[in-house]
Amino acid sequence: MLEITKPTLVINEAIARRNIQRMAAKANRNNLEFIPHFKTHQSIEVGEWFKEEGVTKITVSSVSMAQYFSQAGWHDITIAFPVNLLEKELISDLLNDVALTLLVTDIETVKKLEDLSKPASLYIEIDAGYHRSGVLFENLEYLQSLIDTIHSIQHSFKGFYYHSGNSYSLRGKQEVEQLFKESSSRLQLLKNKFSEYAPHIAFGDTPTCSVIDHFKGIDSIHPGNFVYYDVTQVEIGSCSFDDIAVVVQCPVVMKSAERNELVIYGGGVHLSKEQLIVKEKPIYGLVALPDEEGRLKPIPEAYVKSLSQEHGIISVTEEYLATVEVGDVLSVFPIHSCMAVDCMTGGFTEKGKPITQMKK
Amino acid sequence: MLEITKPTLVINEAIARRNIQRMAAKANRNNLEFIPHFKTHQSIEVGEWFKEEGVTKITVSSVSMAQYFSQAGWHDITIAFPVNLLEKELISDLLNDVALTLLVTDIETVKKLEDLSKPASLYIEIDAGYHRSGVLFENLEYLQSLIDTIHSIQHSFKGFYYHSGNSYSLRGKQEVEQLFKESSSRLQLLKNKFSEYAPHIAFGDTPTCSVIDHFKGIDSIHPGNFVYYDVTQVEIGSCSFDDIAVVVQCPVVMKSAERNELVIYGGGVHLSKEQLIVKEKPIYGLVALPDEEGRLKPIPEAYVKSLSQEHGIISVTEEYLATVEVGDVLSVFPIHSCMAVDCMTGGFTEKGKPITQMKK
Repeated sequence: MLEITKPTLVINEAIARRNIQRMAAKANRNNLEFIPHFKTHQSIEVGEWFKEEGVTKITVSSVSMAQYFSQAGWHDITIAFPVNLLEKELISDLLNDVALTLLVTDIETVKKLEDLSKPASLYIEIDAGYHRSGVLFENLEYLQSLIDTIHSIQHSFKGFYYHSGNSYSLRGKQEVEQLFKESSSRLQLLKNKFSEYAPHIAFGDTPTCSVIDHFKGIDSIHPGNFVYYDVTQVEIGSCSFDDIAVVVQCPVVMKSAERNELVIYGGGVHLSKEQLIVKEKPIYGLVALPDEEGRLKPIPEAYVKSLSQEHGIISVTEEYLATVEVGDVLSVFPIHSCMAVDCMTGGFTEKGKPITQMKK
Repeated sequence: MLEITKPTLVINEAIARRNIQRMAAKANRNNLEFIPHFKTHQSIEVGEWFKEEGVTKITVSSVSMAQYFSQAGWHDITIAFPVNLLEKELISDLLNDVALTLLVTDIETVKKLEDLSKPASLYIEIDAGYHRSGVLFENLEYLQSLIDTIHSIQHSFKGFYYHSGNSYSLRGKQEVEQLFKESSSRLQLLKNKFSEYAPHIAFGDTPTCSVIDHFKGIDSIHPGNFVYYDVTQVEIGSCSFDDIAVVVQCPVVMKSAERNELVIYGGGVHLSKEQLIVKEKPIYGLVALPDEEGRLKPIPEAYVKSLSQEHGIISVTEEYLATVEVGDVLSVFPIHSCMAVDCMTGGFTEKGKPITQMKK
């Protein structure tokens, strides 16, 4: 049994494994390669749960993360982040041990990859319309030049990597389906236009991969967050509260009957400052209690209303306040599990098995 | 010389030391004890810079941090956070090595401190009016009962701890002065009312300690953030950009001429998701360049407009965009240094000396 004395990241292994199994099964039904993103958990132990579902290829978001997982025995890794030229040496080292796929977005950068130690496989990242990174899908000429540049040096053009991060602003299945329809037709266009290269279409964001059942025209999916999910994903409609596999457990250090508030030892350095706007107010987490079957359910109107470095202020009802004592431990569902997990730098399963994370 | 290949926390040692010296001199001029908060830097090496200015007593925000600094040779530590009953054993251990001062806010918790290994010195935390934690200063009866409870067990009542966190919402010297005037009169009231106990008045927040010159009625100051400062503190009026001693250096991985944007390797896991609303838009950091004298100055209109886990999107002018290449390294002033420093888990001085941090 896990004894909590300070803010502690607790992973429900059964739920996380079920989330992995579901996504693996969905990929299988659709004849997709399942190349999950490991940036959410950043953990060797959780990686093993994926391995047990047959996963052999993974996605990460940094060279450091690729190093970490390559040392843990993963040999096929996609770094789904515009290639960082300043880490070329490390990338060259990795190419000796790993089948590495990189993301590129511009011709100048591709040219500078000429002196990597070995040929690498390159995706062109497509800007899915939310303007984070990537090439706009309608820039067909530029895409052609980029492919030509890749072929002019030693590397191989693998295809297109498409992350619909705009799905995070959507609410409900219908909106996500509409976005996927748009994405599919864009990707189809690219597939047709560049058919001579038989481009592989890599696709991945947790909302879309969770909501959509049929993935026509896609070759691989790369979601990450789904392993743990979080409050934002419930809000989008990607999952239910029963699917959230992560909480930060936090000691109560003060009660305020005047304000119906609890102060927890658990702040921005534990939950992250990620916020979700609900009814025009920012919230930073939801407090949950186990139901009769032991499943964590959010307590009505119990939410983290503000965070400073180590303090969290929880707004609660008078009824709930009366049931809590200083020294109790609350379970908080994070707004964004990727961020909270990164803040916590490690945790435990509910049974107390350590879940380690890569060091920064 | 420090070689940057990925997001790196870089501390300007000369500026940090000057910030420490200034605050130490101000405390000295006012006959205040200077008991700086170490939660911002969380670093043994930076602690030494304080020691060189004659600091012997420190403030921290968790039992873990007290343990860390006690192991580094600090023997007088205030844990400026409502005491966490679940760490009583650790507190008892610490009491064997350290002159420990704890914060309490309610009678029930004080009663449960009866079985600590040794007598501890207890501050009552006063809610400075922004309702994070502490007892409202006007609850004089409750304060009296709390003092009586402390005296009924083995511990000693040291005085009142007052953190005007509401100063963070102020802008300009005048507003901060007005708040301090209010705070002083409240504290004077408490001092008079409880004069028989000769209560020590502990006071501390970076805006007030930076802006105010004369601290009548205060016995000690406990600011933390001032060692590094940040964009928020400039916005409040606590310091100028020349006083910011911390940047996160981030590689540029993409340019977008269509949108006048740069993509950096540097996201919410590096800068934290702390935001500052400027002209109704959230910003997550400011990009800075050295001037002719080597002092970092913000580049006009170059700010971090959004962050995901590892990506930062920087909005820039067309002119500045033209001067930047993929593979360059940008210096980003964080919005809130305490949060960015915690995210980064360690860094370097500009000359490349490692700055280590406590592990969570």
